[in-house]
Amino acid sequence: MAPSSWIDIASDSRFSLANIPFGIATFPNSEKPTVAVAIGDYALNLAVFALRDGFSQLTEIQAQIGVFDQQSLNGLAALGRSLSGTVRRYLLNIFRADTPYPHLLKDNQELRNQCLVPLTQIRMHLPFQIGDFSDFYGGMNHAYNAGALFRGQNGALLPNYVHLPMAYHGRSSSIFVSGTPVRRPWGQIVEDITAAKKHPILAPCRSMDFELELGCFVCGGNQPFDNISIKEAENNIFGFVLLNDWSARDIQRWEYVPLGPFNGKNFATTISAWVVLADALEPFRKPGMKHPGTVLPYLQEQREAFTYDLNLEVQLVSGSTKRASTICSTNASDGLVWSFPQMLAHHTITGCTMRAGDLLGSGTISGLTTSSLGCLLEQTLNGKRPIQLEGGEQRAWLEDGDEVILKAWAGNEIDGYVGFGDAAGVLLSAHKQIA
Amino acid sequence: MAPSSWIDIASDSRFSLANIPFGIATFPNSEKPTVAVAIGDYALNLAVFALRDGFSQLTEIQAQIGVFDQQSLNGLAALGRSLSGTVRRYLLNIFRADTPYPHLLKDNQELRNQCLVPLTQIRMHLPFQIGDFSDFYGGMNHAYNAGALFRGQNGALLPNYVHLPMAYHGRSSSIFVSGTPVRRPWGQIVEDITAAKKHPILAPCRSMDFELELGCFVCGGNQPFDNISIKEAENNIFGFVLLNDWSARDIQRWEYVPLGPFNGKNFATTISAWVVLADALEPFRKPGMKHPGTVLPYLQEQREAFTYDLNLEVQLVSGSTKRASTICSTNASDGLVWSFPQMLAHHTITGCTMRAGDLLGSGTISGLTTSSLGCLLEQTLNGKRPIQLEGGEQRAWLEDGDEVILKAWAGNEIDGYVGFGDAAGVLLSAHKQIA
Repeated sequence: MAPSSWIDIASDSRFSLANIPFGIATFPNSEKPTVAVAIGDYALNLAVFALRDGFSQLTEIQAQIGVFDQQSLNGLAALGRSLSGTVRRYLLNIFRADTPYPHLLKDNQELRNQCLVPLTQIRMHLPFQIGDFSDFYGGMNHAYNAGALFRGQNGALLPNYVHLPMAYHGRSSSIFVSGTPVRRPWGQIVEDITAAKKHPILAPCRSMDFELELGCFVCGGNQPFDNISIKEAENNIFGFVLLNDWSARDIQRWEYVPLGPFNGKNFATTISAWVVLADALEPFRKPGMKHPGTVLPYLQEQREAFTYDLNLEVQLVSGSTKRASTICSTNASDGLVWSFPQMLAHHTITGCTMRAGDLLGSGTISGLTTSSLGCLLEQTLNGKRPIQLEGGEQRAWLEDGDEVILKAWAGNEIDGYVGFGDAAGVLLSAHKQIA
Repeated sequence: MAPSSWIDIASDSRFSLANIPFGIATFPNSEKPTVAVAIGDYALNLAVFALRDGFSQLTEIQAQIGVFDQQSLNGLAALGRSLSGTVRRYLLNIFRADTPYPHLLKDNQELRNQCLVPLTQIRMHLPFQIGDFSDFYGGMNHAYNAGALFRGQNGALLPNYVHLPMAYHGRSSSIFVSGTPVRRPWGQIVEDITAAKKHPILAPCRSMDFELELGCFVCGGNQPFDNISIKEAENNIFGFVLLNDWSARDIQRWEYVPLGPFNGKNFATTISAWVVLADALEPFRKPGMKHPGTVLPYLQEQREAFTYDLNLEVQLVSGSTKRASTICSTNASDGLVWSFPQMLAHHTITGCTMRAGDLLGSGTISGLTTSSLGCLLEQTLNGKRPIQLEGGEQRAWLEDGDEVILKAWAGNEIDGYVGFGDAAGVLLSAHKQIA
């Protein structure tokens, strides 16, 4: 049974006392975005709360109080996982009905009016200034399915897949916060990819897809040329967001050998605005897919429960009918064969520098059933088997005006939900012409 | 015949009046790095020069004078190519023997003492806060040679190569300024890559390589989901540096299919400190390799002289003997089949956001002769044919203690040289153990 709060939190709220996610928000009557947490239907402005001595009972943060007045979570994350976890637990104590510090917020109506604001009145921004974004391929069902569609079943999973958490460097400049519309890209496309002689044309993408992923924000980081061991990796994880790795399959198909995806992915990645701290997901640890081999010692996970019992859902809101269809329901534990600590350990085994605010994508998370596949490429077998939407429409690929909404939640009504903010984006039509 | 300067500039100086490259330097008696230009054996501190009214005769920059007091060139570059070109020409007029503004610096000995400092007394930093780094594959000789060594001659150049300037997203966190030592990375290596069953081990890289590239810094940039046309591309190029894309060939070989290079490249990239403005290279335009096909209209170069008559050289200073060997001599015009404007146009054709300070690598520049190949992979046929160094040593790959120094220069003694700063780095031995 979860503690109760003096704030009115609906039992089905995704931002229960068990959650307390962090984000960057612009509050009413303020021009500058600041650090915030979400609680029920409210956001607490931590810059104002800090300025008004809200953290006076938390000595560890006194010297660092400026991190709450920044326009990104980079400063907070750079202080390390332990301190952000301490701040979260302190805020939980502030929000509890039996708070030990009622004078700091609960009984201070004037301050509550100033810094506790309905979510509907704030505007969310990217939570981090993201230095580097690396997108992994940690969902083995997806890797197999996508590989089979691109290269045939014999080449579906290459020999290296089971030995290392594979990834490509992504594009940080085109990461957008949930709610930002995404425009269908132009690119080079080969209409008959099987022809002996390929004739690329320049055209708007004809096979627009989403990818259901988890994103992981790094805190702390390492010195250049040092590595982050698998044992230390957990301490370098700040928290998680949902991540839609928008993909232009026709562009990707033509360009990706031998240097990997580039234009097929570089136009947009959508993430949810609220970062769920790693600590908040700890109660939901769960074993993931069984790894099909053995891995080298530097990649050996410390615990069997290397992923989370986290429900994942994809809604497609039709641009024509405006009706929402749930086109994917799965669980984080169903598709991932590599954990974020393994990804971090592998990423840095070369000494690659990791900085607070760097983002790792999990790779597409797909279960084994059709309704649990995390992208249209898999669901429609590369466009050959359209899916049915509510109201009778079909989709082989995304159409202009469609909105894709990723959702995630752990927990239940009794203990409280630990929900993510949506990662939503409407697909705009391509530019009519290219300059 | 070049104009002469009141500053004593040696006729073989790489920083002649024809050059005036920009960088970020810490000057004596100052803690904070600022914007600087190099002239002969000196650097001019533009923050101090601006503060002391040095730019009083340049009205265009008055409202933006703060960009010189920043710790990166991002602010200056964001103002656009035209304005940085104007600043360079203004400084040329300041430095000319017949300067129209002698009171601003030439005849002000007190200010000269303050802001014109020998290069030996300053410390250089990364010139930009680099948001994203994309590494292209624009050298066709290299692409063919490397492809043949990795995939056999039949698969050397894939069909897409001649249609699009191929690239992978690189890692911006591990870009280091010239002079920073680089540590040999650990990684997954398969000793017998041709075996039916692959057995990776974790070991320090055994085939450490360099890659000779040009780097191109972006100015201006585009709005999300717009593109930069090939016509506009030149206006989005701030300037150039030398770029050593250190490569761990054994790690790269095992990991790179299907998502491209990751750990094989992500530990270090070295760039030269001084950015040679695009304007300074204009007099040296030269046709590059003839493109072997036709390209789509959005990639059609405006001019035949799409590259530069820029001499490139790689020196290897042996860690054992300390003797320098010139192991590669080539020219930027010999190996590149794609231009930077083509790269920018392709990169952004999807609407990918480009920001001031983003970095593009050209790809390895290799000529056709053994002595003009831009990496050891090609020079030694993947380690099978070691090269000879001065003093009798051989190298199949780099050894611990070796220093790699990239050099570049255009021009001559009469008109003045437009030289790059070196891109140098010593290879340190791998960590003895991995944590």
